[in-house]
Amino acid sequence: MTTYDIALIGFGGVNRTLAELVAARGDTLRSELGFGLRVVAITDLRLGSLVQPEGIDLGMALNMDGASGTFAAHGGSADTINESVIRNCTADIICEATFTNPEDGEPAVSHVRWALESNKSVCTTNKGPVAIRGAELTSLAEQNGVHFEFEGAVMSGTPVIRLAKKMFAGLKLNGFEGILNGTSNYVLGRMEAGLDFEAAISEAQKLGYAEANPAADIEGYDVQLKVLILANELLDAGIELKDVQRQGISTVTPEKIQKASREGLRWKLVGSARRNVDGSVTAGVSPVALPLDHGLAGVSGATNAVSFETDLLGAVTVSGPGAGRVETAYALLSDIIAMHAARTGAAAHV
Amino acid sequence: MTTYDIALIGFGGVNRTLAELVAARGDTLRSELGFGLRVVAITDLRLGSLVQPEGIDLGMALNMDGASGTFAAHGGSADTINESVIRNCTADIICEATFTNPEDGEPAVSHVRWALESNKSVCTTNKGPVAIRGAELTSLAEQNGVHFEFEGAVMSGTPVIRLAKKMFAGLKLNGFEGILNGTSNYVLGRMEAGLDFEAAISEAQKLGYAEANPAADIEGYDVQLKVLILANELLDAGIELKDVQRQGISTVTPEKIQKASREGLRWKLVGSARRNVDGSVTAGVSPVALPLDHGLAGVSGATNAVSFETDLLGAVTVSGPGAGRVETAYALLSDIIAMHAARTGAAAHV
Repeated sequence: MTTYDIALIGFGGVNRTLAELVAARGDTLRSELGFGLRVVAITDLRLGSLVQPEGIDLGMALNMDGASGTFAAHGGSADTINESVIRNCTADIICEATFTNPEDGEPAVSHVRWALESNKSVCTTNKGPVAIRGAELTSLAEQNGVHFEFEGAVMSGTPVIRLAKKMFAGLKLNGFEGILNGTSNYVLGRMEAGLDFEAAISEAQKLGYAEANPAADIEGYDVQLKVLILANELLDAGIELKDVQRQGISTVTPEKIQKASREGLRWKLVGSARRNVDGSVTAGVSPVALPLDHGLAGVSGATNAVSFETDLLGAVTVSGPGAGRVETAYALLSDIIAMHAARTGAAAHV
Repeated sequence: MTTYDIALIGFGGVNRTLAELVAARGDTLRSELGFGLRVVAITDLRLGSLVQPEGIDLGMALNMDGASGTFAAHGGSADTINESVIRNCTADIICEATFTNPEDGEPAVSHVRWALESNKSVCTTNKGPVAIRGAELTSLAEQNGVHFEFEGAVMSGTPVIRLAKKMFAGLKLNGFEGILNGTSNYVLGRMEAGLDFEAAISEAQKLGYAEANPAADIEGYDVQLKVLILANELLDAGIELKDVQRQGISTVTPEKIQKASREGLRWKLVGSARRNVDGSVTAGVSPVALPLDHGLAGVSGATNAVSFETDLLGAVTVSGPGAGRVETAYALLSDIIAMHAARTGAAAHV
């Protein structure tokens, strides 16, 4: 039985939940998936750093919060020494779940690069490094014979990247359009139900969907990163963030929404990319009034969806959660499962 | 470069389209998928039988229809000698696309059994053998070290069975519900738009969605078979056709539809299965008035969809075409791609 040693970089909601899954379901995962997982390193801005090659006591780690001291009390350090831990720990796989910086993808880009350079595989739920440095990091992984997986960067654990890559063999993918941000989708839905913009945002914040500063969600920055990732990964677009036109939902007034409703239309914030006749790819994010029988018009609340346009099947759409601690932690697990399958050919025999 | 020799059992719309794909895209498939396809046998009720181990001229075969003679004029036979062709031809893979018989699955069950017994892999788009004899035939394939694939039996080329098996590793699947018949879904949609039942059926027939005798679609028999396949394949239910409760849409009156519409509900014919606390599976087909924000409520026209209920992700839904010549022929191609991946581990490296 293979056991993969993993390091958790960032011990917030996502990596904590992954640790909970490993602690609570380790035996089940072992029997169902054919491999075990052992956490050998954790770094966190508040808790510091802990490296234990024989395996960290997850009960202890999960009981710690910022208020109860640091890893210094458990044989580690109060400092967050990411580079040294990532490069020198005994992990096979680095699970990167720090925060997304849409400008340069740092510090996550460096985390991923350090890991791949030291011949460790990486899974991440972090849009930044994938959107900003995806091609470079994928190439680095290939050079070093390790894996770089990032299913969770787009729709948390809902399979999108892997679905398109594995389920559409033999098809030509001409483009996609998607609802890739639950907050803006929720807000538009509540405005259709009669709330004004501010009230809808406020409700979304109370429900935990929207951040204190909702601009990334409302103005389309979050979707822009996701469109960039999907366009480059699935359409081999070779584009940069500036090539993805972006318009948010703040221009969608209650009047526009009510008018659309009377006309059998529904406003959605749609991220899309399409291959042009000359082979180039046009990508963008903007609010669109969709007919009610459009495949994305019925995607409500915080649900996300991507509709793929294929040559032989026409549109194939997948919808599911686009966020959530457990859902995103599963994305990391699904990445590790994919790495195991690639190593052993296990997926081929499912 | 591997070349798989294939035999086409039944040369109607689906296998003709597969032959067209092989003829028109053979080189592309070869370079993209890493294998070639060669048709070495065809049998058909009208055209007879043709076996040519060095490869059949597909241009010739595709030009033939029932009116222009039989394969006897091309070195074959006017007789449909399925057993002998299936058992003795040199094909690696039998593509079974005859007609579905929901009583005993014949003659397709025999076609599949003969192929597996003679150590040939089988792909089929035929619900009958999978629904009625799926466990027996899968077991026979395993004993003989060959493959039995049938993605197209449920939603044509839209990945459903393979998606659930390959994309949901590490998740617990608790059940599913789906819109699995385009004709009945189209009819319900047109009735919501104001047509009465007969007019809606008539329109569906004109569009080619509904058969001359629409009972299989309208009374839920088609969905019943698909639910049986999904329940046994994905939930390991071990149930038979009689265990899938069935009710069609003929009880859904225009009055019920208008009332639902006023209440924010929409009638859909839903096929579903759910694992019970004791481990047993309850499965059925019936019309249900769904809230408009339900994931299946917006699935319109001839589109099909399945919503999977998982433990860590909640509901994940895939929608796409549920029928069509090209779409169903792609299902056979996707089965062959899966067989190739299983042989070579190729899927693991995608």
